[in-house]
Amino acid sequence: MRLRRIKGIEEKIKEYSDVIVFDAATLKGKWCEKFQNNNPIYLEIGMGKGNFIIKSATLNPNINYIGCEISDSVAYIASKKIRGINNIYVINQDATLLDSVFCEKEISKLYLNFSDPWPKKKHEKRRLTSKSFLDLYKKLLGSGGEIELKSDNRHFFEYSVMMFNQEDFEILELSLDLHSDKSDIVTTEYEDKFTSLNQPIYYVKVRIK
Amino acid sequence: MRLRRIKGIEEKIKEYSDVIVFDAATLKGKWCEKFQNNNPIYLEIGMGKGNFIIKSATLNPNINYIGCEISDSVAYIASKKIRGINNIYVINQDATLLDSVFCEKEISKLYLNFSDPWPKKKHEKRRLTSKSFLDLYKKLLGSGGEIELKSDNRHFFEYSVMMFNQEDFEILELSLDLHSDKSDIVTTEYEDKFTSLNQPIYYVKVRIK
Repeated sequence: MRLRRIKGIEEKIKEYSDVIVFDAATLKGKWCEKFQNNNPIYLEIGMGKGNFIIKSATLNPNINYIGCEISDSVAYIASKKIRGINNIYVINQDATLLDSVFCEKEISKLYLNFSDPWPKKKHEKRRLTSKSFLDLYKKLLGSGGEIELKSDNRHFFEYSVMMFNQEDFEILELSLDLHSDKSDIVTTEYEDKFTSLNQPIYYVKVRIK
Repeated sequence: MRLRRIKGIEEKIKEYSDVIVFDAATLKGKWCEKFQNNNPIYLEIGMGKGNFIIKSATLNPNINYIGCEISDSVAYIASKKIRGINNIYVINQDATLLDSVFCEKEISKLYLNFSDPWPKKKHEKRRLTSKSFLDLYKKLLGSGGEIELKSDNRHFFEYSVMMFNQEDFEILELSLDLHSDKSDIVTTEYEDKFTSLNQPIYYVKVRIK
């Protein structure tokens, strides 16, 4: 489901300045003003085309959602669908820079859905559950903050569970076949594809101590 | 692979007093004397018919092995095969009583192979990875001691990983398909059966901090 870069995306994306926050760093510590309420903020890193966050936001009008997406073309596609939903904003941002966008404890929950597994050992630091990212999440979420992770990739999932354990997160839920264990799951595009192929979805929910 | 109770087992089992230690509690803190060396002691709880411990002991003559088996009929079957191997003893014992058999830190490694999953919530305390058992293992093994767990049962495995995390064990290795990831695995009878049916074997190795 990789998307080819859209021609002229730099200009096209500007049409969605009501959805995509281009000056995200200026809102650090002030996201509640942007949303015009004090509802908790849930962040999805790697929102893709937005199915998960749109469904979540529609089901939970009292939660504010921010979708982080590194690809401008993908953020653009998602934003077309998001326009008009008042509890979602998009940031077109590299996740390594999120501490310039949010102050400590500004996020209440984080979603990591089908993150790039970066299978090679030399790319370990790029995995969204490597130590430096987990340290970042601890800052953004603070004690009691939760992370929900879903993946189809066995080795990435094994790695992530080990990292959560090593970095002292509390595992609240763990399923090696999420769709066998639960119904009413808000799914992503990837998840629908894998589930239709009868591939198990791995799931873990952790809390910062 | 449940075994029917052998008729007259109470008498028959006595033939194997060279393999089965009937007065195990008298050896508490003195197992090195029984083995006549100071090699580390590895314990398997639920040894079954003994395939795993026999292969392990043969491959590792400098390790002492103790197989704990609650069923006297099963311990008897295993002991027939173990006779003559000088680095294995069997104890026919309920695992809840192991602290009457070993002093603190007397065990260096613990194996939990295909333990009974006790799936019902009301039987949770019987699972060999419930809190009271993990507390017991911490005493028997001490800091740095390791536990290796293999299972074919998804829910028991998920539960066990969560319990290890909750009780502050360090996860050293985790595999959701052990036989895809490793070769030269010392297998149990159950494991051979499940692997031949292409069922994944779940594996976790933890260390006491």
